[in-house]
Amino acid sequence: MLGFSLLCWPGMRSSLTFGLVPFGWIMASVCYCTLDPQPDKLHAMELHDLIRGLHEPADTKIVLFVADGLGGLPIEPNGKTELESARTPNLDALAREGACGLSIPVLPGITPGSGPGHLALFGYDPLRYRVGRGILEALGINFPVGPRDVAARGNFCSVDAAGLITDRRAGRPPTERCQAMCRLLQQVRVPDVEIFVEPVREHRFVAVFRGGSGHDLGDAVNDTDPQQTGHRPVAAKGADPNSEITARAVNAFVAEAARLLHDQAPTNMVTLRGFARYPKIDTMQEVYGLRAVAVAVYPMYRGLARLVGMEVADAGATLADQVETLRQLWHQYDFFFLHYKYTDSTGEDGNFAAKVEMIEHLDQELPKIRALDPDVLIVTGDHSTPSKLRSHSWHPVPTLLWSPTCRPDPVTEFGESYCLHGGLGQFRAKYLLPLAMAHARRLGKFGA
Amino acid sequence: MLGFSLLCWPGMRSSLTFGLVPFGWIMASVCYCTLDPQPDKLHAMELHDLIRGLHEPADTKIVLFVADGLGGLPIEPNGKTELESARTPNLDALAREGACGLSIPVLPGITPGSGPGHLALFGYDPLRYRVGRGILEALGINFPVGPRDVAARGNFCSVDAAGLITDRRAGRPPTERCQAMCRLLQQVRVPDVEIFVEPVREHRFVAVFRGGSGHDLGDAVNDTDPQQTGHRPVAAKGADPNSEITARAVNAFVAEAARLLHDQAPTNMVTLRGFARYPKIDTMQEVYGLRAVAVAVYPMYRGLARLVGMEVADAGATLADQVETLRQLWHQYDFFFLHYKYTDSTGEDGNFAAKVEMIEHLDQELPKIRALDPDVLIVTGDHSTPSKLRSHSWHPVPTLLWSPTCRPDPVTEFGESYCLHGGLGQFRAKYLLPLAMAHARRLGKFGA
Repeated sequence: MLGFSLLCWPGMRSSLTFGLVPFGWIMASVCYCTLDPQPDKLHAMELHDLIRGLHEPADTKIVLFVADGLGGLPIEPNGKTELESARTPNLDALAREGACGLSIPVLPGITPGSGPGHLALFGYDPLRYRVGRGILEALGINFPVGPRDVAARGNFCSVDAAGLITDRRAGRPPTERCQAMCRLLQQVRVPDVEIFVEPVREHRFVAVFRGGSGHDLGDAVNDTDPQQTGHRPVAAKGADPNSEITARAVNAFVAEAARLLHDQAPTNMVTLRGFARYPKIDTMQEVYGLRAVAVAVYPMYRGLARLVGMEVADAGATLADQVETLRQLWHQYDFFFLHYKYTDSTGEDGNFAAKVEMIEHLDQELPKIRALDPDVLIVTGDHSTPSKLRSHSWHPVPTLLWSPTCRPDPVTEFGESYCLHGGLGQFRAKYLLPLAMAHARRLGKFGA
Repeated sequence: MLGFSLLCWPGMRSSLTFGLVPFGWIMASVCYCTLDPQPDKLHAMELHDLIRGLHEPADTKIVLFVADGLGGLPIEPNGKTELESARTPNLDALAREGACGLSIPVLPGITPGSGPGHLALFGYDPLRYRVGRGILEALGINFPVGPRDVAARGNFCSVDAAGLITDRRAGRPPTERCQAMCRLLQQVRVPDVEIFVEPVREHRFVAVFRGGSGHDLGDAVNDTDPQQTGHRPVAAKGADPNSEITARAVNAFVAEAARLLHDQAPTNMVTLRGFARYPKIDTMQEVYGLRAVAVAVYPMYRGLARLVGMEVADAGATLADQVETLRQLWHQYDFFFLHYKYTDSTGEDGNFAAKVEMIEHLDQELPKIRALDPDVLIVTGDHSTPSKLRSHSWHPVPTLLWSPTCRPDPVTEFGESYCLHGGLGQFRAKYLLPLAMAHARRLGKFGA
């Protein structure tokens, strides 16, 4: 951030709010606003600037029901996908009455992780708002990461007497050992920076560096993992003054860890990767004017929701519990994000039949949601997870938007092939929330 | 461009190039031109720069027939829209022979006003080229607003003896009174800035401030309307030096208006809102190489056409008159914008049957246009105005492009549902004119 002081003249403030990690991107957001100290009306607007100027209060409710990894593939050529195979009378009824389509989470061909997939559905362009790997890892273990934090993924590794790495994953130790080693590392103290170490599983842990006042931590710090055995862990370096503060703390932490773990082979050293600052993201309330709540069970999705300013409810363990929570919160919020994990996990397991079953289970809970009389009800996924591929994929995601103001389309069943003929067409997922806002009568007219 | 030299620190070019691998498209539209005075070849081009370099002369004719607010909704679930209900043999013939689709005026979910809706159809990105409310109001009463002007919407209001507003609309006086009050205000003179005051109707008028040489007026001026009674009108302030010139003229005008209107209760004071400079927009001739003419009846659409450099014809009062005007001008222009208002006004009235009738009336005039033998004939709307909603809406707009070079698609009738299967797909309206240019053989090849 060498150029920062030079860059700061009046009118630039809003560009700083986009101060996300990677350098190229910082450049982009900076030049968006800064070229125009006296804005005239000829510059293109960003989606959020547009929405901020248009949203209006309304007494309407929007439900975003995310079936994680919903989209699929047939096993046999010209067979049916998981969603098409499932018996889903309630989804089909919504499809008949509403509008269907296929959403593209990021760009055609791009397979999203959970972060970008959900940010898009929350109405945040995933190419603009990026959540670094360290932060996602911290969110995934429910660590209450905050605006002063830089988080990293840690690995326990094995080093020989000369300090050269012999196993980058320390032989994948049991998670119990990971927990014990983390307790050791929790003793480490370094000047000016608070450090938190939390186990994930096997060789993996999370390290969070929290800056004190006057010590704003940067995240332009290299990985200390050399990515191959026979080398020492790499020293951390910061690419700018604030990241240099982080790098000093990282190096002090690693030196102290080496000392504490000296007798703990095979887990006798650590490497750190994916340094990421907590992104500054304007809340859904600020951008969309929505009081939003997440009803999600898994920590990562709760963390992603918190990132965009949603409140996070105690959801219970089952989908029925979640729907009951939704019912109880109905009058307190405008926007409800309901997350259902098992369409993704069964897909990742390569279990076609189980994914079908999870979709049928989801379908059975829908009448309870409809009974709440939402103004807009969306069912979609954050990405596809075809059980045939056993992983996230780039395939567009079947999406259903039900509202009384939908224009009829010919779709009578909810499924990938049917959605091809739907009124929503194929569209970028980041436009789904603006569309929902329109149907909820929460957006005014653009221009006279 | 103030910040330019500040932005150029060593190493920045390389960071820009770096930024293009994953982030190129995001950076593209916002900063491609300004960060780099010696453009390299990796920056994405803006639509207009692309078109400028590609358009070629041709002896072909393009007709853009805009049925304002054309898109609709069924009244009953799964019923037909206005367009689908209308008997339209001529539109259906064009749909069979040409290509159909649905245009998105601004972005999914965004309801456009007339300004953005038309700019998009004229091939100008409505998120980039914005027309302020004051200017639109001036265009709407046919005031010949020009590049040195800042226009505002004015209200006559009522104030008590202490100067506090008691009625922001002065009891909605008859338009005759509005005209008389405007005649009074037309006497006001202030130094360096010329002021024009013209009545609209009831309490509304337009005030135009025209800068003299050396007095370039800015429009970053606050509304003087406090938006509530019991308060004084707010003083105008400029957010930059040029807008400060405007603000001084505004305050001098308001002070003089207060004096002149002192005995004219309830119309004894004025407020001004929506200050807007006449936008600098390159003409259709400059960007698209088209000699363009508008055949429109209503002042606002004539003004919007003038804004992009179209000539504006005396259109007559009826659609038949407009088509006759088109015929008379046929050999003088390349591009013809024909505007038909009544599909919108009947939609705004909530009169489904009348909108159907207006569409049928439009259909009957089509053979006369086809008889002129255009190379490209487009029928579309600037937005949807479903009579069910009695207002503009965000729904995509049925669009038909007829030309001998259209690839066949399965659409045999012109209507929203049929257009879902059309060859144009769902597309941003700003691409319609480039598409028409291609079919008119007016665009050369991009790249070798």
